[in-house]
Amino acid sequence: MVIHTVGFVGLGIMGGPMAANLVKAGFDVVGYNRSRGKVERLVEAGGRGAARPSEAARDRDVVISMLPDSPDVEEFALGDGGALALARPGSLYIDMSTVRPATAVALAESGRARGVGVLDAPVSGGERGAIEGTLSIMVGGDPEDVATARPVLEAMGGTVVHVGAAGAGQTVKAANQLLTAVTVEAVAEAVVFLEAHGVDPTVAIGALAGGLAGSAVLDRRAPSMVQRDFTPGFRCALHHKDLGILTSAARDVGVAIPLGTVAAQLMGALVAQGHGDLDNTALLRLAEELSGRGH
Amino acid sequence: MVIHTVGFVGLGIMGGPMAANLVKAGFDVVGYNRSRGKVERLVEAGGRGAARPSEAARDRDVVISMLPDSPDVEEFALGDGGALALARPGSLYIDMSTVRPATAVALAESGRARGVGVLDAPVSGGERGAIEGTLSIMVGGDPEDVATARPVLEAMGGTVVHVGAAGAGQTVKAANQLLTAVTVEAVAEAVVFLEAHGVDPTVAIGALAGGLAGSAVLDRRAPSMVQRDFTPGFRCALHHKDLGILTSAARDVGVAIPLGTVAAQLMGALVAQGHGDLDNTALLRLAEELSGRGH
Amino acid sequence: MVIHTVGFVGLGIMGGPMAANLVKAGFDVVGYNRSRGKVERLVEAGGRGAARPSEAARDRDVVISMLPDSPDVEEFALGDGGALALARPGSLYIDMSTVRPATAVALAESGRARGVGVLDAPVSGGERGAIEGTLSIMVGGDPEDVATARPVLEAMGGTVVHVGAAGAGQTVKAANQLLTAVTVEAVAEAVVFLEAHGVDPTVAIGALAGGLAGSAVLDRRAPSMVQRDFTPGFRCALHHKDLGILTSAARDVGVAIPLGTVAAQLMGALVAQGHGDLDNTALLRLAEELSGRGH
Amino acid sequence: MVIHTVGFVGLGIMGGPMAANLVKAGFDVVGYNRSRGKVERLVEAGGRGAARPSEAARDRDVVISMLPDSPDVEEFALGDGGALALARPGSLYIDMSTVRPATAVALAESGRARGVGVLDAPVSGGERGAIEGTLSIMVGGDPEDVATARPVLEAMGGTVVHVGAAGAGQTVKAANQLLTAVTVEAVAEAVVFLEAHGVDPTVAIGALAGGLAGSAVLDRRAPSMVQRDFTPGFRCALHHKDLGILTSAARDVGVAIPLGTVAAQLMGALVAQGHGDLDNTALLRLAEELSGRGH
Repeated sequence: MVIHTVGFVGLGIMGGPMAANLVKAGFDVVGYNRSRGKVERLVEAGGRGAARPSEAARDRDVVISMLPDSPDVEEFALGDGGALALARPGSLYIDMSTVRPATAVALAESGRARGVGVLDAPVSGGERGAIEGTLSIMVGGDPEDVATARPVLEAMGGTVVHVGAAGAGQTVKAANQLLTAVTVEAVAEAVVFLEAHGVDPTVAIGALAGGLAGSAVLDRRAPSMVQRDFTPGFRCALHHKDLGILTSAARDVGVAIPLGTVAAQLMGALVAQGHGDLDNTALLRLAEELSGRGH
Repeated sequence: MVIHTVGFVGLGIMGGPMAANLVKAGFDVVGYNRSRGKVERLVEAGGRGAARPSEAARDRDVVISMLPDSPDVEEFALGDGGALALARPGSLYIDMSTVRPATAVALAESGRARGVGVLDAPVSGGERGAIEGTLSIMVGGDPEDVATARPVLEAMGGTVVHVGAAGAGQTVKAANQLLTAVTVEAVAEAVVFLEAHGVDPTVAIGALAGGLAGSAVLDRRAPSMVQRDFTPGFRCALHHKDLGILTSAARDVGVAIPLGTVAAQLMGALVAQGHGDLDNTALLRLAEELSGRGH
Repeated sequence: MVIHTVGFVGLGIMGGPMAANLVKAGFDVVGYNRSRGKVERLVEAGGRGAARPSEAARDRDVVISMLPDSPDVEEFALGDGGALALARPGSLYIDMSTVRPATAVALAESGRARGVGVLDAPVSGGERGAIEGTLSIMVGGDPEDVATARPVLEAMGGTVVHVGAAGAGQTVKAANQLLTAVTVEAVAEAVVFLEAHGVDPTVAIGALAGGLAGSAVLDRRAPSMVQRDFTPGFRCALHHKDLGILTSAARDVGVAIPLGTVAAQLMGALVAQGHGDLDNTALLRLAEELSGRGH
Repeated sequence: MVIHTVGFVGLGIMGGPMAANLVKAGFDVVGYNRSRGKVERLVEAGGRGAARPSEAARDRDVVISMLPDSPDVEEFALGDGGALALARPGSLYIDMSTVRPATAVALAESGRARGVGVLDAPVSGGERGAIEGTLSIMVGGDPEDVATARPVLEAMGGTVVHVGAAGAGQTVKAANQLLTAVTVEAVAEAVVFLEAHGVDPTVAIGALAGGLAGSAVLDRRAPSMVQRDFTPGFRCALHHKDLGILTSAARDVGVAIPLGTVAAQLMGALVAQGHGDLDNTALLRLAEELSGRGH
């Protein structure tokens, strides 16, 4: 299948620039978003607007969703009037939202019953990656469907990795959020520990970065953490949502994630304290608070 | 001061090759170890043997200790017959063991009272780094003493970083052990989570490694973890000891380290289960056991 | 309203004897269960059997459900053919299952729209309490509905406490499961700690029971724990399910429950290890395993 | 041995009234404290004052210490001029401080070498118990020594339980502090959880108290917790110290205490935040803070 028309539902901070990149790559993009302003921006970029989700979804070569959470995706895709029911047999549905692996599996099963190929293709790389088209995309689904979808995915991402069968993309994304949250919190604990002992954390990080203690968080985020600059980046509220997916997905398969759970509790506390709009590195704030320091 | 003679106490797995590298670099090394075989090996390498710790310590340009734990170092260095009492004023004492920051500070204070410069200079990089002279050395102490000691330290290490005043080397080492333990455990949790969902962890790690979830542990240790190869490397028993230093040093300054504490509990459990001689990546074993998987 | 006919859906280990106690108290009980054998047992006890859930639910004075989990209750009660749609205006629906507080609130809202009073009335006290009619019942809902339902509830329970508005019964039940799980785990940790130090835990528990360390778990469960008798009682699998409700209900309101979360992880590990049918005091097994002891 | 003269070192909040109770019971008490005012108060109560610890310790039938921490006790009792060296063979030394089990064992070994019976006899029951002579005393040591000491101990305590050999008293005390801290924190989490769901915690506690969720903390402390009355009682700073003993004693024997460790971290955080002088039930403050509630 050669892909011409792409229906795109969810034109928010991430979805908007992703859809615009599809337009730039020459696809005929028909986009829908609840707030009309986002749709207009897509039209200005050269796409077309849809008045309803069903209009974006019906009879396209590919339908893409980029929605906040599992229930939004289920509402959009499943059921009698859902995207999978409206899709042309032989077409593709790609959910790029971050949702539960079990939701991705359910979408794939529903698609299979209707002859629609389904991929779960969540992303990492943040707003900047969406704008620049350099997202990392973790794809789960059948190899032929991944091959068909590749031109579309590569128009949005710098790295497209097929990580396994249906749900695998979401599983890998959940693992990504586990590792990221835990590493950020570990760096936060280390920074507070170092400062409380009177050690300059910047000097210490320089000494630590090259060894087995090193991490992308230490390299790329520790400097702003030391400065207490918590401009997002990746907001706590979103990371909190994703850690909810992680903990329930771990529970689904009976896997203990002691560190993941603690990190999820701390991220939840930050959000409960009203810091959902700070960068997830604001875990450092909480680490300081728990040590009677800072602020 | 130009350094000629170096007393070296503690010629074990790490200390033996470190002392041999000093010999190779042209220093006159007088070494002591409880087991005579280790002393003989130093003599074969071109060093001299001492019959007692005091003989190694008395009247040297530099005295170095590489001992198992804080009490060993305190017994060697402090007190009336200790290394600091035997040291020549103007000489240097460098403790390269991993001990409590508070012990390092006590050594420095005792040295100051006797006119002896004291450095805490713990290392990372393991047995291989000790043999190849490529250790990372984190140094705490006065800048002039660090400058004086640099030729000696550079004969043993590939990276020598002066991270702050007395105790700072040990503080940074403790932070290193925090970050390493937490990252290993996070990767272990991620691997079990991925496998339980039927995702090939090697493929997933490939997708994760380049992003913010990336770490030295993911790059360098995850492959052997996936293979369940727990050949040390860095043994659980030693990491457990170091995490004891971390948790008490955190307590000393009132810093909460929720992830560090959980990682310390898990490492302690591995050791209690009799796995002290496995590599610290064996945290994966425990993660599997807590999920009813593996073995 | 004087209550004559009670529809009862879910005649399992708990529901079966509860329904039988209603029969004994003189109510006309029409019961349904998926497995016919349970229905027959109710008939032998003097009740009537229903062939379908709708038959038990339609047009009764009171409908009671005692089902495994939130989705079961939602399926039974909500929707066009659900119990609330079939209920006579002015009648009562009492869900005695342990489900999410949010589910209880949704049931109450749906009932309100149809003129049906809804109570959430989960129980504690286990199989024995169900048989002996001595359950503790925590009731959420409107005071008049609680007053109306009291004769029915008191036929099944020794203690009936109205703890607040709709959902409050489930909230208190979740708090009950939090406190119970944490106390069991704390006693497990204490027993292993005492034994590892060579102290007879029975003697120690005698010394501890009267003070601020005392608890119902210490009084009633520690003796069998010390004997490693994990005959249920309250099975791990059920407590695990309830702790899932707890953690998601805590997340719903942004409340951090660090101990509750750890206890939930440990209970989940026990279940993943295949011990779901042991009593929840089997947390002691896991505590021993994590200390390299026992078995 | 019939006991006449008792040396008593450490006449603080606990030790002062304990020594006074000994005077009341007819013993000849010779007391020492660093601050003279405390000694004078003992003299007013009918005791005698000592100018130095050694004066209180030398040649008494029984010597009792009630000191802040392990190093204080070691300094007082061990070494050439210490209480055990000054004690008459055949006399008793009773340490009633809360210290590490390992310290108690070391005292007992040192006493044995000198023919002095040694008991570890830490207490619970707080300042009020000390004044009223109703402390719970957990005693470790040889049965004959416990029998000999009983009249002295019963002058201070309402319950005197011989829990095992040397160190057992301290071990049981550590278990007591584990159970107490965990139960307080669990009740704190439950209260915040209930309130966040709009449930009146007082009503809920009434419903929970009689079941398996019940505890002495729920009965005796929850009411003041709900009122946010954190008047000590048992101060966080002391509980924090005792939890340090617990965690190191658990580490000494390789026992994992996941809940104990989390509770210790939280208590440490409270102290680090400057709340060391509040009652340990102030864990509720922290639970609220982590949920963005309260204050």
